[in-house]
Amino acid sequence: MSGYFVTFEGGEGAGKSSALSGVAEKLEEEGYSVLMTREPGGINISEQIRNILLDKNNTEMDARTEALLYAAARRQHLVEKVKPALSEGKIVLCDRFIDSSLAYQGYARGLGIDHIFQINQFAIDHFMPDLTLFFDIKPEEGLARIQANQHREKNRLDVEHVSFHQKVYQGYHLLKDRFPLRIQSIDASRSLDLVIQDSYERIISHINT
Amino acid sequence: MSGYFVTFEGGEGAGKSSALSGVAEKLEEEGYSVLMTREPGGINISEQIRNILLDKNNTEMDARTEALLYAAARRQHLVEKVKPALSEGKIVLCDRFIDSSLAYQGYARGLGIDHIFQINQFAIDHFMPDLTLFFDIKPEEGLARIQANQHREKNRLDVEHVSFHQKVYQGYHLLKDRFPLRIQSIDASRSLDLVIQDSYERIISHINT
Repeated sequence: MSGYFVTFEGGEGAGKSSALSGVAEKLEEEGYSVLMTREPGGINISEQIRNILLDKNNTEMDARTEALLYAAARRQHLVEKVKPALSEGKIVLCDRFIDSSLAYQGYARGLGIDHIFQINQFAIDHFMPDLTLFFDIKPEEGLARIQANQHREKNRLDVEHVSFHQKVYQGYHLLKDRFPLRIQSIDASRSLDLVIQDSYERIISHINT
Repeated sequence: MSGYFVTFEGGEGAGKSSALSGVAEKLEEEGYSVLMTREPGGINISEQIRNILLDKNNTEMDARTEALLYAAARRQHLVEKVKPALSEGKIVLCDRFIDSSLAYQGYARGLGIDHIFQINQFAIDHFMPDLTLFFDIKPEEGLARIQANQHREKNRLDVEHVSFHQKVYQGYHLLKDRFPLRIQSIDASRSLDLVIQDSYERIISHINT
């Protein structure tokens, strides 16, 4: 029995994390066994790596060091958490995966999509998601949502200049062109209920084909 | 003014660390400015990464995670320590660098020289050593030296089965064929004085051509 690996991708404020929870609930109601996760996901080695990435004293960190550390944390999370769940037949819903690195580091930070793809191919050993949902919303709209949401703690990326988020958005669209079968767009400007329903249906129809 | 980047490579017990010190001394006597280093080399981020690699509780570490972490530590050490010294015109003598990863992880551990080369190319951004000295000694002989030296603390690699060290040795020879201009063999079965003199002369003659 083999499971099904779905990743949720998009810019800041696209609502993918909320949608992910809603989709997981719907799938479980239908009797599917689901694992919700995001790196580092409680995996010890990945958490240790993430601590280095988030340590505010590490101001000297080079962009390539950062990319290699993200890839290392990804590898370990994949091996220890995602793969075992898939081999138990679960549907794994993962909040961000390889495409985030490609869009943010490869494209928006200018390290090159191909370069970041190479080190991530090494990390995942060609273990790509079965399906990727790209939560498509204009960056200005996503950022406005974040600003309206006073409960959400702003992170480092939320406060980047809007032009950075526009580049991320462009990056995702390039990826959609590159992986047209794997990446499906979800119109994330709609209400959360509609977005959840749409995401759920995409997953079900993809599983059943 | 730009410096000169020399790496010292070889299996366990080849005597490269002792030779490196001796060569540094000779070069300094001749008025060269020298930096001796080895990863993580006191660089904060690289040391933090090394701590993860050496943590005995991290028994779950996947071989690819390990390779990515070594590459990340290499990147940061290169950026913060090697490059600044070179731009000050120093001769940098580095105990192990990319070829160690290629021989140990790529070849002996079976991850593939090409794969390990790819992630390391990303890490060093094509910043290859000007010259690499390969300390060539039969693995059995190197291991016998280690066993004879009671002052040397044995590390994880010293206690690997001899067949592993033979593979490392084969790996280095493959690399020598692949990079015949960069990698020069030093007959490391001779006395330390002769090995130091030979290494010193190779570096001087390479600098002067």
